[in-house]
Parts: sequence; structure tokens; C-alpha cells
Amino acid sequence: MTKPKIGIIMGSRSDLGIMEEAADVLKELGVDYELTVVSAHRTPDRMFDYAKTAASRGLKVIIAGAGGAAHLPGMVASTTSIPVIGVPIKSSNSIDGWDSVLSILQMPNGIPVATVALNGARNAGILAAQMLSIADVKIADRLIKFKNDLKLKIEESAENLKNEGFPSEY
Amino acid sequence: MTKPKIGIIMGSRSDLGIMEEAADVLKELGVDYELTVVSAHRTPDRMFDYAKTAASRGLKVIIAGAGGAAHLPGMVASTTSIPVIGVPIKSSNSIDGWDSVLSILQMPNGIPVATVALNGARNAGILAAQMLSIADVKIADRLIKFKNDLKLKIEESAENLKNEGFPSEY
Amino acid sequence: MTKPKIGIIMGSRSDLGIMEEAADVLKELGVDYELTVVSAHRTPDRMFDYAKTAASRGLKVIIAGAGGAAHLPGMVASTTSIPVIGVPIKSSNSIDGWDSVLSILQMPNGIPVATVALNGARNAGILAAQMLSIADVKIADRLIKFKNDLKLKIEESAENLKNEGFPSEY
Amino acid sequence: MTKPKIGIIMGSRSDLGIMEEAADVLKELGVDYELTVVSAHRTPDRMFDYAKTAASRGLKVIIAGAGGAAHLPGMVASTTSIPVIGVPIKSSNSIDGWDSVLSILQMPNGIPVATVALNGARNAGILAAQMLSIADVKIADRLIKFKNDLKLKIEESAENLKNEGFPSEY
Amino acid sequence: MTKPKIGIIMGSRSDLGIMEEAADVLKELGVDYELTVVSAHRTPDRMFDYAKTAASRGLKVIIAGAGGAAHLPGMVASTTSIPVIGVPIKSSNSIDGWDSVLSILQMPNGIPVATVALNGARNAGILAAQMLSIADVKIADRLIKFKNDLKLKIEESAENLKNEGFPSEY
Amino acid sequence: MTKPKIGIIMGSRSDLGIMEEAADVLKELGVDYELTVVSAHRTPDRMFDYAKTAASRGLKVIIAGAGGAAHLPGMVASTTSIPVIGVPIKSSNSIDGWDSVLSILQMPNGIPVATVALNGARNAGILAAQMLSIADVKIADRLIKFKNDLKLKIEESAENLKNEGFPSEY
Amino acid sequence: MTKPKIGIIMGSRSDLGIMEEAADVLKELGVDYELTVVSAHRTPDRMFDYAKTAASRGLKVIIAGAGGAAHLPGMVASTTSIPVIGVPIKSSNSIDGWDSVLSILQMPNGIPVATVALNGARNAGILAAQMLSIADVKIADRLIKFKNDLKLKIEESAENLKNEGFPSEY
Amino acid sequence: MTKPKIGIIMGSRSDLGIMEEAADVLKELGVDYELTVVSAHRTPDRMFDYAKTAASRGLKVIIAGAGGAAHLPGMVASTTSIPVIGVPIKSSNSIDGWDSVLSILQMPNGIPVATVALNGARNAGILAAQMLSIADVKIADRLIKFKNDLKLKIEESAENLKNEGFPSEY
Repeated sequence: MTKPKIGIIMGSRSDLGIMEEAADVLKELGVDYELTVVSAHRTPDRMFDYAKTAASRGLKVIIAGAGGAAHLPGMVASTTSIPVIGVPIKSSNSIDGWDSVLSILQMPNGIPVATVALNGARNAGILAAQMLSIADVKIADRLIKFKNDLKLKIEESAENLKNEGFPSEY
Repeated sequence: MTKPKIGIIMGSRSDLGIMEEAADVLKELGVDYELTVVSAHRTPDRMFDYAKTAASRGLKVIIAGAGGAAHLPGMVASTTSIPVIGVPIKSSNSIDGWDSVLSILQMPNGIPVATVALNGARNAGILAAQMLSIADVKIADRLIKFKNDLKLKIEESAENLKNEGFPSEY
Repeated sequence: MTKPKIGIIMGSRSDLGIMEEAADVLKELGVDYELTVVSAHRTPDRMFDYAKTAASRGLKVIIAGAGGAAHLPGMVASTTSIPVIGVPIKSSNSIDGWDSVLSILQMPNGIPVATVALNGARNAGILAAQMLSIADVKIADRLIKFKNDLKLKIEESAENLKNEGFPSEY
Repeated sequence: MTKPKIGIIMGSRSDLGIMEEAADVLKELGVDYELTVVSAHRTPDRMFDYAKTAASRGLKVIIAGAGGAAHLPGMVASTTSIPVIGVPIKSSNSIDGWDSVLSILQMPNGIPVATVALNGARNAGILAAQMLSIADVKIADRLIKFKNDLKLKIEESAENLKNEGFPSEY
Repeated sequence: MTKPKIGIIMGSRSDLGIMEEAADVLKELGVDYELTVVSAHRTPDRMFDYAKTAASRGLKVIIAGAGGAAHLPGMVASTTSIPVIGVPIKSSNSIDGWDSVLSILQMPNGIPVATVALNGARNAGILAAQMLSIADVKIADRLIKFKNDLKLKIEESAENLKNEGFPSEY
Repeated sequence: MTKPKIGIIMGSRSDLGIMEEAADVLKELGVDYELTVVSAHRTPDRMFDYAKTAASRGLKVIIAGAGGAAHLPGMVASTTSIPVIGVPIKSSNSIDGWDSVLSILQMPNGIPVATVALNGARNAGILAAQMLSIADVKIADRLIKFKNDLKLKIEESAENLKNEGFPSEY
Repeated sequence: MTKPKIGIIMGSRSDLGIMEEAADVLKELGVDYELTVVSAHRTPDRMFDYAKTAASRGLKVIIAGAGGAAHLPGMVASTTSIPVIGVPIKSSNSIDGWDSVLSILQMPNGIPVATVALNGARNAGILAAQMLSIADVKIADRLIKFKNDLKLKIEESAENLKNEGFPSEY
Repeated sequence: MTKPKIGIIMGSRSDLGIMEEAADVLKELGVDYELTVVSAHRTPDRMFDYAKTAASRGLKVIIAGAGGAAHLPGMVASTTSIPVIGVPIKSSNSIDGWDSVLSILQMPNGIPVATVALNGARNAGILAAQMLSIADVKIADRLIKFKNDLKLKIEESAENLKNEGFPSEY
């Protein structure tokens, strides 16, 4: 692996099950990343240091996942100028996920967080790759292939349904 | 005014209309405070410095108000061990106030924020005074009187309704 | 155990699983507490008597947990001037916890309840200790150590992830 | 006016605009009532006394209106055995009325509150009259006439629309 | 059993598990009832006939439970002048119970439904008994005893906690 | 006007401002309709009679609009087998429109209501025309033209923006 | 099976468990359908082609089910003039189904989607048959029988309850 | 202006008031853009063509704003591999903005949309610039300056409050 361009962080080890999906899709797309635990609330100094050194350490995009009153993505975005992608996580005492969604999405003017769906870490990885693809034609090509594969799987699904006897003229 | 014991902070000047009510009730209760603007997202360094120096500067309680993805109360609480009271503010592009309420209330284990009602800055001031009253008998006495005044106003209201002709045997 | 300074109450025995976490963290922080069942709706007289005698019995803070139409924290706060911390509990027929959160949080001007997260009894205990720490340097020191321990656990988590092979330059 | 059978109470004078509608419809239905201000949070003693003496003073039903963390109806119901009707009021800092609706509706087993629609004081008055009508044939007759009048108004509306040129075969 | 005074109806046999609780508490309180299935949507004629004949058949109160787009309580209330109690039921494809709560609670002016908590059939039974108690001193006495029993159970709970070693000065 | 094929009904005259939009678009599409007031709650007999005679009077589709606990569309659908389109209306004491949306949408299995957007009476009219167009080629052709006109308006909008100086290569 | 008149499509094979209920009820009602997988997001070209050719291939109604940010029903409706019925599906990472309900229901003026309840595929099938029944007397007759069967099942339920000993005078 | 790198599109001219803020901030940051109206529902062909030609026309990022059942951002993202930023707009018949937020945010795996706050077009513009800054050091430098200016404004606000007499030791 070369120097990572994407930093994946999460507020707690218990978010790993979700956040690993971002790592997995980046691997599929051939994009190097790093992954660690950084808590806005329990390690604020670590968080600030992580965010402040991100650009100089070569990171181009940060993916930050957190649940409940999810401040990690927004606080990282307040400290660096590179794009930050936020992944709302439905943690155990969450109020149906609304808390993490709104805590990440509703950032004030000046400090955007690119928010993806609840537990949408896989999409966060794809979005990070899309951002890199602006200046990296290889990743752009892989994304086009990736999109095509999604299409093929649906078409295969449709074919299978026919074979299982579901009628379709189309 | 003597050295302030309560620090009132808000994420934006536009929150002053609400947050001044905390200052007003502290004045009524004879408690010294300071009030300034500290933004978690626009001045993260200022926020951390404010929170880190709070105890040594003599602050006993911090009241923090913010709207939208309201990270100020939680991030201050992550950095100091003195109690932090959070005031969710219904700002202009808020989704009915739910975003600020949930961003402040749903803190993870280890880092509490004492949350009050939406736009409830006045109650934040009273709560701060209650905390001080644990070790300050004068404030405790003023709070008892304050509570009694609330009662008298309701009783007066009831009396007025009778005089206006609303029937009541009670 | 010396005379308790924190009173922990709950509307029903079935809330004990959650509310014990407040007791547990107070034990960790070396703060004496008492714990009992007091129902606003089934024992209103007991509740009023509990609240009215709280200060004279030496209680400095009350932690009250309740679910559904959760009136216990607010009604106790209406009857005493010492600070009251409210713990919304997601009980069985709750509408996703919204009922207890809003019944506790949205108190009218004059009568604050320091509300913590849904099922956040552990944070209620920490918040109560923070309030006592205003005038008790020993508790203040323990809270600083407690906060540091949280940090160490996250740093250990991060170290473990590296050892498990997750790449990280940080 | 004879001895009132219905007690109308509200948490604050500012709720009078809504709660008067209960009084008005009771007048239309020829049912005597009393109306006053009783605050669960600001006058808990007055509230308890009101509820405890209600039955002996001749009240048969209590209509209680409140906004925000609306504890008045439930707390009155906890103290008396006569039926209590709750009117959720959309007060100024309410979170869209959800707080008062849920604080009144979601009562635990054993202590019902007959809840009506948000700001539905008029329906609270009609419901109180329906309860009295169980043992009062004159009120029962007036309610039948009242229902018939509602029907006639709709039929008149329909007739008017035809006269204004809206086509209808029915 | 004598002639029933309370009619318990539900939209579907699958609601019986919840609605039986209304029957059970009425039995405890010595109040006669009848119980059957009446669907607003699948048997509108049966529903109208049930509601229209209710008063003449001797029913004094109707308890109607339904889930989803729950029209049964409101439609019965539109057809009879006796009081109708609505029980919102959290059925299988319900959106967290919000649909049945709002479909029952938010009745227009003129046609009240006395709504109880989600799945609150037990409270519906108690409320029906309270309504009868206006003119039936025996039921009134049983309700007072019932309330006292609730209190005793809480006090017993509190005593048990002490015996299990939970500290309490109260 | 020939015999109406679409019946437009609403629970109250106050819904006319919204429901007239259904009539207006049917006029544009050359489809005859009738329009009147029918209240599920205030005129249940009228509602049942309207629904029962609808098919025999020649109606092919019913559009029913209502607010709050909106039972009109569902109850009409329970009584007739012709398709019923429901229009949720955001009435004055509505809880943000959620009550009417859920009361109309969440119908139980067996009794569908074709629900459109909040206040979406215009779309209800279009949908009714689409249903007729299944067997009426003239209406089908008008709907194709109607769709094309929507497209032309957007393209004109885009052209106007260019003329106003907004840059666009497209 | 003759040429299908109803096209059932879904965004993903994982929706089949729900969407098959639409097929099942159409079978019961003797209406021919086709069923396949078409994803708005993964096969946009397939979706557009499906929608554009629908009318010419003989489809009279399209039933489209999707979860999360559910764009399939609305996008199909934007491309064809035949009626489109939308089925919101509560998929795994859905926020309690609210996302799919609102994504399908809240269509802008000009492009209606006939929305049914969350997971309400069975009702979508019935609604499609109702639309065909406008011009097909056989289907109309089957729908009347179908409605009658629903009634009989409820009446049977009521009879059973009596036999099981639940008292009922009705 | 050189060839635009950012395409700003919106579902309706009425969204221009909000979406212009994206254009304005891009101007401040010296980034060329184009802006036009593209409706997913009214001009699906135009939308597909726009999305399919975006990359070849030189666009690097698309910002798409829409209200209600907001399908534009997601459908554009389904058709191109360049990053798409979604701006939920609170349009007139919106259910408090929830519909547009959820329709844009909750995209399925494979097709991310970078969602910003309700009406957050300004942040969409900044986020687009951040994406370009990955490979454009001039924009990166402007973003750092931009962030610094936000900080200075808050510090100035704080200074002003002192001058207006609000006490602050900090």
C-alpha cells in the first residue's frame, strides 16, 4: 500500500462493523486509506491534531462516522479545509438514527459536511473515490466500471426472476 | 461585578436574543457571569482554549447555546470537567428545532450535557444558579424566593380571572 | 457510606436496569447516593414529600428517571430548589422514546430540568458529580482522572486496530 | 349558575384563548363549569389541593389544558379518581405541539387521561358533557341536537356550493 | 353478568391481545361489558349499525381500538352521542404507531374521541369505569381502592429495594 | 357539461381553496366532475349514501380531501369498489400535516386509498384523469400534451435564466 | 396468461417478498401482470426504456415498489402518462420507513404517484384492479365479491369470539 | 469566465433564491460554474442528457437542489460517475423539509449523493470547491483564507459584544 489518501475515522471501536464497509469499497476501487479511532468527545486533542495534520500528511478526503450526538464529522470539518464525508451511525441508544443524521447534516454556513445515508459507509467510500477521480483518471475509469457492474447485477436479477417463472414481457 | 462564575457562550451573534435571557435571570438572582461569542465550527481553537481555561479562570458552570448541528455544548463538555448546560436554539434553517435538540441532548456515555428546552436560555440561567446554590446559601435563598414569586404570579392570575367574571368555586 | 448527597429515584422498579448505571458511576466517583422508587402518578404524595424534604435531608442533587409521559423529573423540580437531573427512559409502550424525552426536556420557564440522553443514566450520575465538584475539590480531581481514562481507552482502541492490521499513519 | 360540575383548569393565563372554547361549548350545552389557572410546575400545592378537593366540591369531570412538557392533566389524574380530560396546547416554544401531545397522551397503566386533539378545547367541553350525559337525559338530548346541527351546517354548505355554480348531481 | 354498559370493539381479531386488557380491568372493577370485532373499513354497515343502536341497547361508553389508519373510534363517535374512548394500536406495518395515534387523536371540532396511550387498552377500561362512576358510587369506591392499590405496590417496591441493599434514607 | 365521471368531495367548505385545484385541472383536461361537501364525521349518513350510490350514478373515480384525523377518503373506499384518491390537507390545528397524511395513507390490507402529496389536489385531478385514460384515448392524448407542456415550461425557464445572464454551456 | 395489463417493478430483488403480494392479489382477481426488477439508481436506462415502452407494450398501470430514497415510482411517472402506483418499502437501513414514504408521496404538481401504505403491495394490486375495473365489468364484479369476502371474514371473527366466550349482545 | 467546472442545477425556477447562494460562494472562491433549470420529473430526458454529457463537457462536480420528493440529485448521480452534491430545499408544500432531506440523503449502496443541510446551497458551493481543491492548490489556498475570514468575523463579534457592555473576562 502506498501513502493513504483517504482517512477513515470513527468515534468508537463499536462503529467498526459499519465503517469497515468504507474501507472495503476503497480496496475494491484501488484507493489507499488509513483507518483509526478518533473520538470528538473522549479525545478532543487527538481529534484536533488529526484534523490539523491531515492535509500535510497527504490525506485528500476524511470519512468520519459517528452515532448519537455525532460531532466528529463537523468538528473535523471545522479544523481542516479538505472535504469531510460524514456517516451517521445508528448506535444503540440512538433515537432511531435521527440524532446522528441531524447532528451531521445540519452544519452551519461555511463548514459543509458531505453527508451520506444512515449507516451508509460504503457510499462514503465511493464518494471519496469520486472526489479523487476528479484528478485521477484511473480511479474515474474504475468508477465507471463499478457503476456498470451494479447495472449488470440488476439485469441478472431480472433474468433470474424470469427463470423462476415470474412472467415478464420486458 | 465580581469575578464571573458562569460563562455564557453562543455559536453566533444571532443567538444573542435568546441567550441574553440566561444573563437576565442570573442578574435577577445576583450571580455574576460573562458572555461572549465562541463558535465550535468557525473558531475551534478559541472554543478549545475557552473550555480549557474555564476552570482556572474561575468559571464554575458554562452555559452554551447553539442551533442546527449544535456542537458547541458537547465539545466544550468534552474539554472541561465543570458542568456544561446546553441550550438548543431554533435557528433559521433548523428542521423545526429537532436538529439542535438532538445534537445537544444525545451525548455519549462519559460526557454529559445538561440540556434544557428549545430556546430555554432562561431556564439554563436558573439551572446554573441552582448548581452554585449547592455551596452558596445566599443563592439558595434567592432561588426559594424566586420559586415563591412564580407561585404568587399564578395565584394573582387566578384571582384576576375571577374578577373578570370567570366562575370559580376554588 | 456517609449521608447521601444524591437522590436517585425512578417511576417504576422496571426502570432499575437503566437507573442503576447512575448509581454505579457515582460509586466509581466516590459519591454517596440513595436510590428508591417514587412514582409521580401512582404515589403523588410520596413524590411531593420526597421532594419537599430533599434539601433538609441533605440531598444536593436529585436524579429522576421515567418513561412515557414522564412527569417525575419535572414535578420534583417544581417542588424543590435543588437541581434535578432528568433521565428519559425508553419504556415498553413508548413511542420510540420521543414521549419521555419531550416530557422531561420541554419544561416551562422557571422550572428547569437538566436533561440527559435517552437511557443516559450513567451521564446523569457524572453530571451530578460535576455539580458537587463545584465545591468539592476531591470530586473535581476524580472527574479529571475519569475524563483522562476515557481518553486512554480510545487511544488503546486505536493502538489495537493498528495491531489488528488496519493501516494508519497516525 | 348552579354548582359547577366541570372544572376547567390551565397551566397559564396565556392558555385562556384556547381553553375558553371549552367553557363556551359547555355554555351552549347548558352545563355549569368553573374555570381557573392552576400550574403543575409553579403551584404544585395548589394543583394537589385542587385535585384532592375536586370530588368533594361536586366536580364530576376536570378539563386540564397545558403546553410543552404538559404535566397538569396527568398529575391531576394521579390525585383524583374522577375522569380527567387533557388538552394539549401548542405554546410558543413548543416543538410543533409534539411535546404537549405526548406528555399528556402517553400516561402509564393505571392513570388514564382522556386526551383530545392539539388545541382541541372545544372537543374537551363536548366530551365532558358526554360523560355527564350518561346520567343526565337532558344533556343527552342536547348533545343529539348539537350533533344534528353539525349535520345541518354541512348540508347547508353543500347547498351553497351548488348555488355558487359548483356542479353536483348529488 | 348483567346487561353490559361498556362496548369494547376492535378493527381486527389480531387486536385482541391488546384489547382484552380493557376487558380484564373492567372485570377487576366489576363493570359489565361486551366485546366483539367491528371493522370500519371491512364492515362499514356493521359499524354504523353497532354505533346507531349502542345507546338503545344500553351501552353507556364505547371503547374502540384500531391500528394504522385507525378510523373506527372516530367513525363510531360520528354516529353516536355516547362517549367513545379510542385505543391506538401499534400494528405490524404501522409507522412506529404514529399513524394510529394521529388518526384517533386529531378529531375535528364537534366529534371528540377520548384518546389513551399507544396500546393503552387497560387505561381505556379504567377511563370507562371513571365515566360510569360519575353516577355510580359503587364503581367510584372501587376506583378509589384501585388507586390505593397502585400506591401500595410502589411502596412495596421501594421497601423491596431497601431489603435488596439499595441505600435509602427515605 | 355531460354526466360527471369524477366526484370531488371534501370534509369541510374550508378545504375548497385546496380542492378546487382538482376541479381546475380536470377542466383543463376536459373531464367532467361534480364537487360537493361531504363530512365523514358530521354527516356519516350522507357520506355512506354518497359512496354507495357513486357507481350507479356513473362516477368512475372519487377524489376525497380531508385534514387532521382524515377519515373521509378511507371510509368512502370502504363503501365503494371504484378507486378513491385521497388528498391530505394541512388544516389549521394539524400537527404539521402528519395527521392527515398518515390517516389517509396507512389503510389496512383490502381497502386501498390512492394517496397524493399534502395539499396535492391538482395531482389528484391528474391521477383521476389518468385512470379514465385507460379506456379513453382522448384523455390519454390530452395527458400526453399536458406532460409536454410541463416540459416546455421548464425549457423556457432554462432559456430565461440564460437571458438573465446566468452562465450555462448547456 | 394473456398479455399483461399491469407491470410490477421493484428496485431490488430484496423487495420481492413484499412486492409478490401485489402479484398474488392480482392473481386472485384474475388480472394478468408482469413482474421484474428495474432500478432507478442502478439501471436508469432500463428504467426509462421500461417506462417509455409501457403504454405501447399494452400496460395500463405500473406498480413500482422501492425503499429508502425511493425514486423509482416518481421517475417512472415522469416518463409515462399511464397511472403509476407507488409502494413504499421499509428496507434495512431505512429511517423507520419515513424515507420511502416521503420520497414516493410528496411528488410535485403535474406528476402524481398513487401512493399506498408502507409495505402495502397487496393494496397496490387491488388499486390497480380498481383502475382497470373502470372499463372492465368482470373485474368490477370480482372486486365487489372480494369486498364482500372481507366483510364475511370479519363477521366470522365476531362469531368466533362469541363461541370462545367473549360476551356480546350484538 | 473560463469553461465551467461546476454545474448547478435545480428542479424549478422557484428554487433560484436558494441555489444562487451556491453560485455566489463559488464566485467568491474564484470557481467557474454554470447554472440552469433541469427537472427530474418534468424534463427527464433533459436531466439524463445533462448528466450523461456532464463529464465530457468538462464538469467536475454537479450541485443539484430540489424540494419535496426530491429525485434530481439522486437520479443525476445514477447517471454520471462525477460527484453529485444534493441540496434539500424546503419548498411550499413540503412537510417541514423532511421530504426533501430524506429523498436526497437516503440513497442506496452504490450511488452516493453528498448531502448538505436543508437550504444549504452555500455549503454546497464550498464543498464543490473543496473537491476541486484536491488537485488545485489555488482553490485550496482560497479555502484556507475563507476559513480564516469566518474566524475573524466571530472574533470581531466577540469584540463588539464587549464594547456594547457585555461582561467577559475572556
